[in-house]
Amino acid sequence: MPNRPNRPNTGAAPLMIAVLGAAGRMGSTVCDAVQGAPDLALGPRLDVGDDVAALAGRGVSVAVDFTVPSATEANVHALIDAGIHAVVGTTGWTEDSLARVRTHLAEDGRGLGVLVAPNFALSAVLAMRFAAQAARYFESAEVIELHHPNKVDAPSGTAMHTARAIAAVRTQAGLGTGPDATESTLDGARGAVVDGVHVHAVRLRGLVAHEEILFGNPGEQLTIRTDSFERSSFMPGVLLATRTVAERPGLTVGLDGYLDLG
Amino acid sequence: MPNRPNRPNTGAAPLMIAVLGAAGRMGSTVCDAVQGAPDLALGPRLDVGDDVAALAGRGVSVAVDFTVPSATEANVHALIDAGIHAVVGTTGWTEDSLARVRTHLAEDGRGLGVLVAPNFALSAVLAMRFAAQAARYFESAEVIELHHPNKVDAPSGTAMHTARAIAAVRTQAGLGTGPDATESTLDGARGAVVDGVHVHAVRLRGLVAHEEILFGNPGEQLTIRTDSFERSSFMPGVLLATRTVAERPGLTVGLDGYLDLG
Amino acid sequence: MPNRPNRPNTGAAPLMIAVLGAAGRMGSTVCDAVQGAPDLALGPRLDVGDDVAALAGRGVSVAVDFTVPSATEANVHALIDAGIHAVVGTTGWTEDSLARVRTHLAEDGRGLGVLVAPNFALSAVLAMRFAAQAARYFESAEVIELHHPNKVDAPSGTAMHTARAIAAVRTQAGLGTGPDATESTLDGARGAVVDGVHVHAVRLRGLVAHEEILFGNPGEQLTIRTDSFERSSFMPGVLLATRTVAERPGLTVGLDGYLDLG
Amino acid sequence: MPNRPNRPNTGAAPLMIAVLGAAGRMGSTVCDAVQGAPDLALGPRLDVGDDVAALAGRGVSVAVDFTVPSATEANVHALIDAGIHAVVGTTGWTEDSLARVRTHLAEDGRGLGVLVAPNFALSAVLAMRFAAQAARYFESAEVIELHHPNKVDAPSGTAMHTARAIAAVRTQAGLGTGPDATESTLDGARGAVVDGVHVHAVRLRGLVAHEEILFGNPGEQLTIRTDSFERSSFMPGVLLATRTVAERPGLTVGLDGYLDLG
Repeated sequence: MPNRPNRPNTGAAPLMIAVLGAAGRMGSTVCDAVQGAPDLALGPRLDVGDDVAALAGRGVSVAVDFTVPSATEANVHALIDAGIHAVVGTTGWTEDSLARVRTHLAEDGRGLGVLVAPNFALSAVLAMRFAAQAARYFESAEVIELHHPNKVDAPSGTAMHTARAIAAVRTQAGLGTGPDATESTLDGARGAVVDGVHVHAVRLRGLVAHEEILFGNPGEQLTIRTDSFERSSFMPGVLLATRTVAERPGLTVGLDGYLDLG
Repeated sequence: MPNRPNRPNTGAAPLMIAVLGAAGRMGSTVCDAVQGAPDLALGPRLDVGDDVAALAGRGVSVAVDFTVPSATEANVHALIDAGIHAVVGTTGWTEDSLARVRTHLAEDGRGLGVLVAPNFALSAVLAMRFAAQAARYFESAEVIELHHPNKVDAPSGTAMHTARAIAAVRTQAGLGTGPDATESTLDGARGAVVDGVHVHAVRLRGLVAHEEILFGNPGEQLTIRTDSFERSSFMPGVLLATRTVAERPGLTVGLDGYLDLG
Repeated sequence: MPNRPNRPNTGAAPLMIAVLGAAGRMGSTVCDAVQGAPDLALGPRLDVGDDVAALAGRGVSVAVDFTVPSATEANVHALIDAGIHAVVGTTGWTEDSLARVRTHLAEDGRGLGVLVAPNFALSAVLAMRFAAQAARYFESAEVIELHHPNKVDAPSGTAMHTARAIAAVRTQAGLGTGPDATESTLDGARGAVVDGVHVHAVRLRGLVAHEEILFGNPGEQLTIRTDSFERSSFMPGVLLATRTVAERPGLTVGLDGYLDLG
Repeated sequence: MPNRPNRPNTGAAPLMIAVLGAAGRMGSTVCDAVQGAPDLALGPRLDVGDDVAALAGRGVSVAVDFTVPSATEANVHALIDAGIHAVVGTTGWTEDSLARVRTHLAEDGRGLGVLVAPNFALSAVLAMRFAAQAARYFESAEVIELHHPNKVDAPSGTAMHTARAIAAVRTQAGLGTGPDATESTLDGARGAVVDGVHVHAVRLRGLVAHEEILFGNPGEQLTIRTDSFERSSFMPGVLLATRTVAERPGLTVGLDGYLDLG
C-alpha cells in the first residue's frame, strides 16, 4: 500500500504521537505540525529529565525524537522497550549505535519500526536520489550549494553527500572525472573537489539552505534544485515518517527508505 | 549488466549502425554522432527510395530510423525481417501500429529489440521520470515550458505529457488539485490547466527548448529543469539506445525503459 | 553625497524615528529594525487613536507610517505640521491625495521630505528599474511571477506594473509585440497579456513573493529575478529611506527616487 | 534621439557596412547579420592582405573590424583616414593604442566615431551595468559563471570584471566584504576571491557562456543572469553599434557607452 504524504489517513482513530525534545526548536515545530494534522493526535511532550519509559501503556503509537546526540540512543532503546515506534531526527548516530538498535529490534520481535534520518526535507531527500539516478547518464556533473552567511562549514554536509553519491555512480558506470580544460585559474575558482566532483559554496544574506545539482551532455542540461526556506520544510517529511514507521519493521536509515519511487 | 552511457563499449568489434533517413536533419546528425563514437561503425545510410530489405546480411547490427510517419512502420517490419535491431525516433506511431510490431517480434522469435521513443534527450526523459516520482510528495506542482518563438503549439507536447503524468500520480495518491486562492485574475494569468495541473508557456527569442517542473510544500521547493540547447542534445540518448537495444528483446516504448534507475 | 544603504551613519547622534501603526505586522517589524540599527533610535510608537500632532517638539526626526488607507493622508499632513519628515508604506494614495501633500510641503517651506512608496524591497525596486532600462534592447520580454497559494489576485500588482513599464519602453523604442508563432494553444497557456507583454502567475505552497523578468535576443537571454522570502525584506529599504528622507525635500513617490543609479 | 535596437531605421537609404576579417568566424557571422537587416547593406568584405585604404570613396559608411590584435589598430587609423566610422570587436587594445586613436580622431576633425568594445552581447553588457548599480544596496554579492568545459581560464574575464566592478562600488559606498562565518572549509569551496568578492566557475558539457550575479539582503535576493547560447548572441549588439556609431563622434570604449539607460 502506498504511503500517503500530505494527506491525512482517514476513517480511523488518530495516531497518538509523543515528542521527545518538545521544548527545542525542532521539537516544538513538530508539536505544532502534529496538532495541525487531523489524523494525528499530539500525546506526551517530553524534555530533558523526563522518563521515556513512562510512555509505556499510555496509547502512544509513535515517538519523534529531536533531542541531543548524548541522549538519542538511550531514548530509542527505551522506546523499543515501551513498544513504541520511533522517528529520529537527532544527529550523532554511528555505525555501532545503529547496529545496537538493529539488534535490539530483532530481539524484541514485535515488529517495531525505527527511522533514523539526517534530513526530513522531502525536496532534499528526493534531489539526492534523483542525482544518483541521473549521474550515470551525463558527461559533466557539478554541485552548487547556497546558504545563509552564518553557516560555519563549507561545503554543506548535504552537498558533500550529494557529490560523493554522484562520484560513486560515475565510478560504477565507468565514467572518469568530467571534462575540464582549465589551465589558468585563480585559486578556488573551480570549487572544492569531492571525489572528483566540483562543489561550490555560496554564502548570501537572505538565503536559508539551497542546492543545485547540474548535469551536462552535448547540447543539454539537467538541473535539480532544492530550496529549504524555513524550519517548517522538515515537517511534511516528519509527518510522512510518523504515518509510515509502523508499516516498516526494523531499522531504516534515511527518509528515502520510506519513499515510494517505483 | 548496467548500460554504459557516454562511454564506448571497449574490447569488442564496433557495432555497425545503419541510418534510415540519413539525409534529413536528425538523420545526418545521427551519422555524425555514430562516426564520433569509437565503439560504433557507421554502416549504410538510406534515404527515400532505398530498399531496407537490402540491409540483410551486410553485418548491420542496429538501424536508427529518423524518417517520416508514413514510412517508419514499414521500415521497422522490414528491419525485423532482416534480423536487425531498430531504434526509432520518427513520430506517428499509434497503439495499433505498435501492436503489429509487438506481434511481429513475437512471431519472429529471434529476440530482436525495437525501441520507439518520442524523445531521446536524456535530460528530458529523466526529468519526466523524476517528476512522476516526486509528484505524490508535494502539495503543489506547476509546469513552465520555455521555447523559441517560432513554435506553433503551446503548451509543448512534452509539458502536456509531464502535466498529465503528475496529475495521474496525484490522483492515485489521493491528492486533489493544488491549493490556489485566486479570486481576481486576468484571463490566462494562471496558465493552461491540464488535468488540474497548471502549465505556463513562454516564447522567447534565443531559447530552444526548456522545461521547469516546480513542486512546493510548506517551507520547501523542488525544481527540476531541463534545457535542450540544440539538436545534438538527442545524440547521447540515441547512442545509448543503439548500445542497449540488442540486450532488450521485444518492443520498448520510451527511452526511459532503457534507463537503469534502481 | 551618496546614500549609504546597509551601513549606519557614524560620528553623529542617532536619528530619532517614530513609528505610526507600530502595533501592526509591518509597523512592529519596523520597530525591531530601527532598534537594531546603531545610527537610529526608536522614538514614540503610535497606533490607532494616538495623536500624531503630539509628536511635535519631542526630537523626532523621521516618522514611518504603516497604518491604513483611511488614516495615512491625515497622518502625513499632521507630520508636516509637526516639522517631521515622513516615510510612508501605507497604500491607498491617489493622484489627488498626493497633490495635496505636494501643496502642503510647498506652503510649509521648511524643506521637509515625504516619501510615499508602494514597495520597499530593494531587490524588487531595482528589478523594475533594470527591466525598464533593458526593455528597448530585446526582441522578446515576458514576466513570470511566483507566489504563495493564498494570494487572491493574479497576476500580482508588481508583475502588472513591470509588464506595463516594459510595454511603455517598447512602444517608445518602436518595438511592437514580441515574436510569437503560436497557432494552436490551450486556453491560458501563453499567460495574461498586459499591454502586449505576456505575464504568467505561478501559485506554489512554500513560496512567498518572487518575480522573473525574461528578455531574449537571437542567441542570448537576460534574466532578472527577485525573491522576497519574508516581511523583513522590506526593512533595508525602509531604513535607507529614513536615512535619506531629510536630504530630499518635497514629495517623492517610489523608493527608486532615492536610489543612486548613476 | 534614442537609438533603435532590433529595429531597422526606415525611410532612408540603407547604410553600407564593410566588414574587416570577413572570412573569420565572427566576421562571417557579421556579414550574415548585416545581410539580414533591411536598413543595412553589406559592402566590401576584406580579409588578410586586402587594402583598407581602398575603401575610401566607395560609399561605405561604417566598417566592422573582427580581425587580429596585430592588425586592428592600423585598420582603425586607415578607416579614419578614409572617412569611415569604425566598430571594433578585436581584442588587444591598450591604453596607449586607444590614446593614439583618440588623438587621430581629434586631428581629423570630421566628427567620425570609433567604438572599441570587448563584448557585444547586450545581455552581458547590461548585466554588468546593473550589477554595478545594485552593488551598493546589498550586504552580500557573489558571482557564478558557467561555461563549456573547453575553456582554459577560470574564472572568465567577464566574471573577473564583474567582481571588480562590484567591489569598487562596495568600497565607495563604505561596505566591507560580505558576511561569512565559514570556519571549516574544504579547499576551494568558497570560490576565488576577487577584490573581496567570491567568484565560482562551473564547467559543464553542453553550456556555452553564462553568468549569475547574486545579491542578498535580509529576507530578499536579487539575481541577474545572462546566457550566451551561441556566437550570434553578439549580433544584436554589433548591429546596434553600426546604427549608432555615426551619431557618437570620438572614441567610445565599451558598448554600454552607446546604451540609453536613463
